[in-house]
Amino acid sequence: MHFTAERRLDDGVLEREFTLGEIPGILWTPGSASAPVPLILLGHPGGLPKMYPRLAGRAQHSAAEGFATATIELPGSGDRPRLAATEQARADLRRALEAGEPVGDEIIDALVLPLVERAVPEWQAALDSLLALPEIGGPVGYSGGVISIGVRLAVVEPRIVAAGLFAGSFIPRVMFEEARQVTIPLHVLLQWDDEGNDRQAALNLFDAFGSKEKSLNANMGGHTGVPQFAGDAAVRFFTRHLK
Amino acid sequence: MHFTAERRLDDGVLEREFTLGEIPGILWTPGSASAPVPLILLGHPGGLPKMYPRLAGRAQHSAAEGFATATIELPGSGDRPRLAATEQARADLRRALEAGEPVGDEIIDALVLPLVERAVPEWQAALDSLLALPEIGGPVGYSGGVISIGVRLAVVEPRIVAAGLFAGSFIPRVMFEEARQVTIPLHVLLQWDDEGNDRQAALNLFDAFGSKEKSLNANMGGHTGVPQFAGDAAVRFFTRHLK
Repeated sequence: MHFTAERRLDDGVLEREFTLGEIPGILWTPGSASAPVPLILLGHPGGLPKMYPRLAGRAQHSAAEGFATATIELPGSGDRPRLAATEQARADLRRALEAGEPVGDEIIDALVLPLVERAVPEWQAALDSLLALPEIGGPVGYSGGVISIGVRLAVVEPRIVAAGLFAGSFIPRVMFEEARQVTIPLHVLLQWDDEGNDRQAALNLFDAFGSKEKSLNANMGGHTGVPQFAGDAAVRFFTRHLK
Repeated sequence: MHFTAERRLDDGVLEREFTLGEIPGILWTPGSASAPVPLILLGHPGGLPKMYPRLAGRAQHSAAEGFATATIELPGSGDRPRLAATEQARADLRRALEAGEPVGDEIIDALVLPLVERAVPEWQAALDSLLALPEIGGPVGYSGGVISIGVRLAVVEPRIVAAGLFAGSFIPRVMFEEARQVTIPLHVLLQWDDEGNDRQAALNLFDAFGSKEKSLNANMGGHTGVPQFAGDAAVRFFTRHLK
């Protein structure tokens, strides 16, 4: 992990860009912290340059509660080389949506599963490097982004002790089985009136999670319109479990 | 409205029992308030003596945030005279549940609709008397209890500006239509693993609400096991809308 740039945001949060091999990432740490702080991994749908304003907002909100946050680019997104199979699956998805056809399971599997297979070990490698920094302690949470990456991480990565998931992307069938193996506390956000989202799939996934503590928080406002109070509640979830 | 008893709880909250005609009720006001405070009407499933510990807990939690709270007994419950038709419907319900049969719409209608018809004007009369007290201002919220009473109140009572509803009781078919007329902000609690509850009916009702701001908060813990953090979130909802 190499830091390539750093700056202070208005509220004193230290923002550092880094690369992890070929993968770009960003780390945010609270301005004033005397002891190592817990870490939240910030998931996103891919495309750090485009997602930056929302990610920085979440990072600053989390820093105010004493959390470090970090994110890395997804395979095939942003400034990383495109993946032929993913591009093909995206084109198939667009075609189905434009034709008003139902999105078939084979399209969803082709779009999401290779991404999960590639991304999860990358997040784990990032975690290795991040937890080696003296200013970052633990425990670790995962927040938002492609929900299947969050589910897989929750199953395979024991250092992640709580996850806030965003039910806003397509869910391969195999993930419903995988969800049963999740046992960490979960805070699931669902935009009830998100027209591009399969609400019933999100409810089925929530039902499948094996966690004893799981909360579904459904709100209005469309895909990108998560209300401020729901963001606050997500941070409080991490405060309960990481502090 | 006649006050019949009063005492101070440990945290300084003033608890006053009252009667409104034949109807017993309880009013809780914060220990220290220099100006009139907003009011939350505390719904419940009926039976004040049995429900008292949980209601007093919710009242104390709300008082700490600066709210007065009040509740009245439901028709046919607690120390009020039984209603023959309601008793019959309860017996029919018990018989269906014991036989493992689905609970038919006619049983649900007979159980809930006459209760709504009787209870709603009583809550409105209580509101008249409560808002006439100098220590109580407004605005007014309604919280919990039989969800159909909350829905009807949200439709017919303009002084109620926000409602926290508990999706834990049978819902007559007509309420799904009525829900479309609700426009005030809603915070709906659903115990996801409440075995005595029809989860799909609760989701359908949530979907039907006409409110632009509505949140569904589903948690684990069974019918009576609403987690502490979900209670906290409900109080925050009222703080957002009544303060």
